[in-house]
Amino acid sequence: MLQGFTYPLTPQGKSTLNPPPPWSYSADFLNIEFWSHPAAVAALLPPGLEPDPSANGHGNALFYDWQFSGDNEAYLAPARYQYREFFILVDALYEGKPVASCPSIFVDNDAAMARGWTQGYPKRLGQVFQTRYDAATGKAGPALAPGSKFAGSLTASGQRLAEALVTLQEPVTDLSLLRQRPIVTLLHYPRLAADKQDKPALHELVENVPHDLKIEQAWIGEGSLTLPVCRGEEISDLAPVRSGKGIRASMAYVVDDLKTLKDLRK
Amino acid sequence: MLQGFTYPLTPQGKSTLNPPPPWSYSADFLNIEFWSHPAAVAALLPPGLEPDPSANGHGNALFYDWQFSGDNEAYLAPARYQYREFFILVDALYEGKPVASCPSIFVDNDAAMARGWTQGYPKRLGQVFQTRYDAATGKAGPALAPGSKFAGSLTASGQRLAEALVTLQEPVTDLSLLRQRPIVTLLHYPRLAADKQDKPALHELVENVPHDLKIEQAWIGEGSLTLPVCRGEEISDLAPVRSGKGIRASMAYVVDDLKTLKDLRK
Amino acid sequence: MLQGFTYPLTPQGKSTLNPPPPWSYSADFLNIEFWSHPAAVAALLPPGLEPDPSANGHGNALFYDWQFSGDNEAYLAPARYQYREFFILVDALYEGKPVASCPSIFVDNDAAMARGWTQGYPKRLGQVFQTRYDAATGKAGPALAPGSKFAGSLTASGQRLAEALVTLQEPVTDLSLLRQRPIVTLLHYPRLAADKQDKPALHELVENVPHDLKIEQAWIGEGSLTLPVCRGEEISDLAPVRSGKGIRASMAYVVDDLKTLKDLRK
Amino acid sequence: MLQGFTYPLTPQGKSTLNPPPPWSYSADFLNIEFWSHPAAVAALLPPGLEPDPSANGHGNALFYDWQFSGDNEAYLAPARYQYREFFILVDALYEGKPVASCPSIFVDNDAAMARGWTQGYPKRLGQVFQTRYDAATGKAGPALAPGSKFAGSLTASGQRLAEALVTLQEPVTDLSLLRQRPIVTLLHYPRLAADKQDKPALHELVENVPHDLKIEQAWIGEGSLTLPVCRGEEISDLAPVRSGKGIRASMAYVVDDLKTLKDLRK
Repeated sequence: MLQGFTYPLTPQGKSTLNPPPPWSYSADFLNIEFWSHPAAVAALLPPGLEPDPSANGHGNALFYDWQFSGDNEAYLAPARYQYREFFILVDALYEGKPVASCPSIFVDNDAAMARGWTQGYPKRLGQVFQTRYDAATGKAGPALAPGSKFAGSLTASGQRLAEALVTLQEPVTDLSLLRQRPIVTLLHYPRLAADKQDKPALHELVENVPHDLKIEQAWIGEGSLTLPVCRGEEISDLAPVRSGKGIRASMAYVVDDLKTLKDLRK
Repeated sequence: MLQGFTYPLTPQGKSTLNPPPPWSYSADFLNIEFWSHPAAVAALLPPGLEPDPSANGHGNALFYDWQFSGDNEAYLAPARYQYREFFILVDALYEGKPVASCPSIFVDNDAAMARGWTQGYPKRLGQVFQTRYDAATGKAGPALAPGSKFAGSLTASGQRLAEALVTLQEPVTDLSLLRQRPIVTLLHYPRLAADKQDKPALHELVENVPHDLKIEQAWIGEGSLTLPVCRGEEISDLAPVRSGKGIRASMAYVVDDLKTLKDLRK
Repeated sequence: MLQGFTYPLTPQGKSTLNPPPPWSYSADFLNIEFWSHPAAVAALLPPGLEPDPSANGHGNALFYDWQFSGDNEAYLAPARYQYREFFILVDALYEGKPVASCPSIFVDNDAAMARGWTQGYPKRLGQVFQTRYDAATGKAGPALAPGSKFAGSLTASGQRLAEALVTLQEPVTDLSLLRQRPIVTLLHYPRLAADKQDKPALHELVENVPHDLKIEQAWIGEGSLTLPVCRGEEISDLAPVRSGKGIRASMAYVVDDLKTLKDLRK
Repeated sequence: MLQGFTYPLTPQGKSTLNPPPPWSYSADFLNIEFWSHPAAVAALLPPGLEPDPSANGHGNALFYDWQFSGDNEAYLAPARYQYREFFILVDALYEGKPVASCPSIFVDNDAAMARGWTQGYPKRLGQVFQTRYDAATGKAGPALAPGSKFAGSLTASGQRLAEALVTLQEPVTDLSLLRQRPIVTLLHYPRLAADKQDKPALHELVENVPHDLKIEQAWIGEGSLTLPVCRGEEISDLAPVRSGKGIRASMAYVVDDLKTLKDLRK
């Protein structure tokens, strides 16, 4: 019997891109609030999601420095399982309920890409960076202090697709500021067979159901996001009309499940 | 309507990892013949494939420097679509018919990883290199000439998983030496839903059916392959008992279909 | 005695970034002719070089896919010694003699960066790609034929710094079209000692003297070059007013010497 | 006048690999104590350094996750200035005074490589990873707690050159445990001119004089280091006879000077 959750499957299951769930994550992250043209947001929602009229094009851009592990001490193989991520969430409605949709997401690691695909996250590879903080002196990087600035950047296929800046103002005391909408994604897997290329094997709306979420050392301030026009890319359709709050914090959660909302193949 | 063959799907389909088929490929490649312990080969065949008793553990290791394109001039975005690949094929039988099975394959590009997954190739990311030939002087690299040596190497997750050497003897005149068995892969896609983690969405034996294959400038000689023991990897189970012929050539083909042989979920 | 031409020096000299000269190179390359504002060219010439009034801002942008070797079969370690390069040459005069100056150059390999620095090439790391040609079918990439298009791109520090296109018209029959001016660079090495930071250890005009140059399979046509404005970069100061000829060819040469023209520290 | 501390020099000095000193650094790091064969240590000391007979082959291996900045907010360009590093220090004597010598050092960033070369650090490019700690839950990575394990790895030119593990026991209360010997390096810069290839432009013993060193959140425990035998590499000559203490901490310092101890060219 071959073993492994994602490719490849092997006799002992050691070569697989990913151990079986549960999957544990912890990260430092930047979160930049922004508003796009509502029509641009509406145009990229998957079937089954509706624009949120109260959102007025509202979304969030996030940069993560992740440590990942399964139950197998995968954190002791950081060259294989540590990674960085950028993604965009836009507000939407599913059957009238506020959710977030993820049109754009990039990681720098194949295991993360494979996990994301099983969750409906449309991941591509990218080079993601965020400023590290300097706890000791605040000279090489910002301290966690008012006025400190943290930058984030995303490059994919050789083009700079996103840049962001978060300027801290104060620690977060109102934890409701950190609350996120549930993330609903389009789980999609095509078929290459010539007569089935328009009949995907999977085409479902799914809800991500992480648990044991913890957020620590959260600071809030002003955010700024740029999504430049790039050749062969549509992410700039979401170029912000304006940016809003910016957050810099640490977090952790566990993923071991996925909830199908609707099979879109009918 | 969202467009795109693989993730992500967007309004115009420009951000997608891959254009829709047909997919055209051309490459320089090294092909090293080898023999593993037959039991090691048998242990990693997917259900539905049988060991080929006449093969005695026979397989091939291949290194490719690829240019890829769809019908959209994707070759003009080489940072996005050009890539390198290493893979291993082992001899097997499907319903008594000689085929090749692919237990191990690595690319350095996300679009290639995404395409491979739709074909049943269990791709991970790796850094693949092969010696370039030096047509002009034969000093910086080998010429296409008797005695010339070409090396290949694969690194994944920071470990050197394979090394190979091909020493040329003569141009290939007997084209039957270049014939390959049809490649049969395990098309597998897991489900993350907690109650379905042992019920994959896809678990099929499929046959790859490329066409318009052309091979040019083929030279043949001796091959040598090493698959070192590495932490968390099983590829070394196939470590050669001995190596055989080595080939260095250029080739091209087109992929636009996939044939399902058997749904293994029953 | 420690051995090694460039860092690191070790007892046997195996760890060094580079074997001692001679250094042999072979490559496929794209060469795009362009004209910048003459004042922009004049502004970046090192001391000792004068603007060439007849050049009117003329320069060349080049993309190389290199195989490198020393006399030690380094071509059998392609993961260590194979690389890609982009650079810009602009016309200048040295004591009235036509030369080319190199204000901007990028490679994807540390050994190449180290060699370049000893030659006065101001190399940084970058990701460089050029379209591979498809000898077999012309579907996955261009053939060497009239109308075929080859693209090149450069990314450094996550920003796309250059893009180019060469459209072939015909094989080069007039070999004088391939002649280049001698390349004169600024060999510069700073001192970190606090009282010497404005007194570099090396600050010389040097002439590169490669030999045994061979060019093969040269095609000529139209070139097009873009140098976008990027944060923290000055290469866009040379943004072309117009582009000229484009060449796609293979070449090889040997480097084992460097000629000092003038010590600028005086 | 062209501006820039290291290559390239440009009119405004923005393209240069590095801003002028002072250079500020902060990092999380792992430090693994080990003992090599004393003869192996002696063999790679530069001229002017003597083996430390009391050291018995003692050294330290270090993994750093750095944020770098100049006085120009370079920390807001993390894709350009953030990096990871591995290096080895071995005990030695300079004129009878205890110092450390650096035979082997790797970074994943060109700016860091360029700075290091001006300090006498023989840097090559490598992929360096260390486990990130998980402050929130301790599931995705280790907490700062007794028994927690942190791993480090180094890959260069596609080969895994070093692996390490630190198992925490307790916070460091005796700060003398964190004291390091002054680092003395061989500042070396070759000449490519044919008649000077054995007459380097620089060949000096230099002492690194960082200041404002701060160390925070230091934990100590057991260390373990492996330096596997690799093709074309000598770092395994230092393969530990045994490992000693392991430390995991954060730190910062500033570099703006270098002290020449002795010109070895005479």
